[in-house]
Amino acid sequence: MKDVAKYAGVSIATVSKYLNGGNVLDKNKELIDEAVVKLDYQVNVMARGLKTNETMTVGIIIPSLTNLFFTTIVSKVENLLLQKGYSTIICDYREDEKLEKEKLNFLLSKNVDGIIMVPSCSEDNELINKVNKDLPVVLIDRNIEGVNCDVVLTDNINGSYDAVEQLIHRGHRRIGIICGPEEHYTAVERLTGYDRVHEDYNIARDKDLIRFGDYQIESGHQEIINLMKLAEPPTAIFVTNYEMTLGSIMGINELDIKMPDELSLIGYDNLQLAKIIKPSLSIVTQPMDEIGETAARLMLKRLKKDMSKHPAVYRLKSRIIIKDSVRKLNEG
Amino acid sequence: MKDVAKYAGVSIATVSKYLNGGNVLDKNKELIDEAVVKLDYQVNVMARGLKTNETMTVGIIIPSLTNLFFTTIVSKVENLLLQKGYSTIICDYREDEKLEKEKLNFLLSKNVDGIIMVPSCSEDNELINKVNKDLPVVLIDRNIEGVNCDVVLTDNINGSYDAVEQLIHRGHRRIGIICGPEEHYTAVERLTGYDRVHEDYNIARDKDLIRFGDYQIESGHQEIINLMKLAEPPTAIFVTNYEMTLGSIMGINELDIKMPDELSLIGYDNLQLAKIIKPSLSIVTQPMDEIGETAARLMLKRLKKDMSKHPAVYRLKSRIIIKDSVRKLNEG
Repeated sequence: MKDVAKYAGVSIATVSKYLNGGNVLDKNKELIDEAVVKLDYQVNVMARGLKTNETMTVGIIIPSLTNLFFTTIVSKVENLLLQKGYSTIICDYREDEKLEKEKLNFLLSKNVDGIIMVPSCSEDNELINKVNKDLPVVLIDRNIEGVNCDVVLTDNINGSYDAVEQLIHRGHRRIGIICGPEEHYTAVERLTGYDRVHEDYNIARDKDLIRFGDYQIESGHQEIINLMKLAEPPTAIFVTNYEMTLGSIMGINELDIKMPDELSLIGYDNLQLAKIIKPSLSIVTQPMDEIGETAARLMLKRLKKDMSKHPAVYRLKSRIIIKDSVRKLNEG
Repeated sequence: MKDVAKYAGVSIATVSKYLNGGNVLDKNKELIDEAVVKLDYQVNVMARGLKTNETMTVGIIIPSLTNLFFTTIVSKVENLLLQKGYSTIICDYREDEKLEKEKLNFLLSKNVDGIIMVPSCSEDNELINKVNKDLPVVLIDRNIEGVNCDVVLTDNINGSYDAVEQLIHRGHRRIGIICGPEEHYTAVERLTGYDRVHEDYNIARDKDLIRFGDYQIESGHQEIINLMKLAEPPTAIFVTNYEMTLGSIMGINELDIKMPDELSLIGYDNLQLAKIIKPSLSIVTQPMDEIGETAARLMLKRLKKDMSKHPAVYRLKSRIIIKDSVRKLNEG
């Protein structure tokens, strides 16, 4: 009661009167209500912490805050953890390894109970394994070789395979691909799918049709122009992330290429985008909600000290949606 | 050195040898380097904290993690604070007031040195003012009446005024507007701009042309259909946020309306979107980087106990970009 009075800035007598059902000024009522809520919250958090040595906080690290794919997943994770009483501290590292380590250390200094992270592709397994000895770590989107923690991935290889296969079924043989950075985990997987489907259908790969961007808008823009300016341009192009898909469409508008008559296109990741483009865009969508749910569920399980089936690796399926941006070739 | 050895999992002798320039195994080098970085970081943070009673941490609260407008601003803020040695804890509250208060209390329990927040429209000034007595608070995007802290806003009124004026200059008189929720701070301001320009040009307002959405995609989709199905539909429509702009374009595609021949459109907030739509979309863009910079600069100033010109209110200007989605009416 003393603390409430102090926080609310009213007398102890007023607090006592109010809490015992007496009549006090409306303004004081509000102040006291607020103080009770606030102190109650703090006491609860502290009491839980004392009892269990936990902070009831989970740290989340993602490469970029302005990447809708990651923030959609984080939003899902956060909501599920919140329902179980866990707060989250969200950090991003701008695809910068040094910053990534700093953020990881920052979270450790805040005594988080667990960490869910999208690691940079150059993150080393030793650091993660070390952290994972003290508290649960769940990786999302990218795996790290030799790491000993739970991982939730998209099946990029078969997502890419299926997308390119759809183009092959429609008669396309010169199929361009705009990949992410050559060393990048998801980029390597998506290129592998492209390679495999070419192999399985006995279609020779033309190196000129395989371009590497950096997963940013401008590289999508540049690479689609490079592809369309080839002496023998592709009849279809598969763009392997959302930002580069945006850039490709800018390039198509700039060159005034008619979709799908002059070029078939399959993009990536954003259902909304697919609906506002004309002709409607074919895309590969990743199961963002399912990724978030799986990661949250795994984290909550580990926080309860349930280490069954550790380390778990999930490979969730993408969905291929073929719309008007893809056409059937007559000669196919 | 003892701590480093312990953290790295090597002997003290090895650490000593390495730090004095001696030759040790590559693997040990890495372990020691990592331990030094990590311990150094923690020591620095703790030392700073002990000296100044500060945690060198700023809390950031936004309504939604999946809203690119907010995450772009936060990304800018975070980057600038980082350069001055401040870490950030980012929270979102899903436009839920109760959750907003919880997140605010969570940040206080983490002893942040300051808070930058986009408040919900129902946030009360007393709570903010109380928090602001103990530590600096900077509000972004939405003001709260009676609040006694720094605020960084967009000049929504004149942004909206200028956009609608562009339509009037091109001969439009029946101009529809899709607003945000009726009580919402930025929605009220954007409607005020629409009202004022109608008044200044002596154009009667038709209530049927003023629709209220909820700033989400689906309401933009629904309201543009409602507007275009009126007995006398508008010749131009102004959509007042990004998500509803997405929805409007879906509606336009669905109804197969030709832009700009059958309808002129001005949307909101996303330059990339403007470039991928065909015809290229006219938009009002808010100065996201400038908002982030101003908020970060104000926060750093207050953290240095410089309280000059407190409370500061900034009203930054939007930019109107007219592209091919707007046409001149012959009878204008």
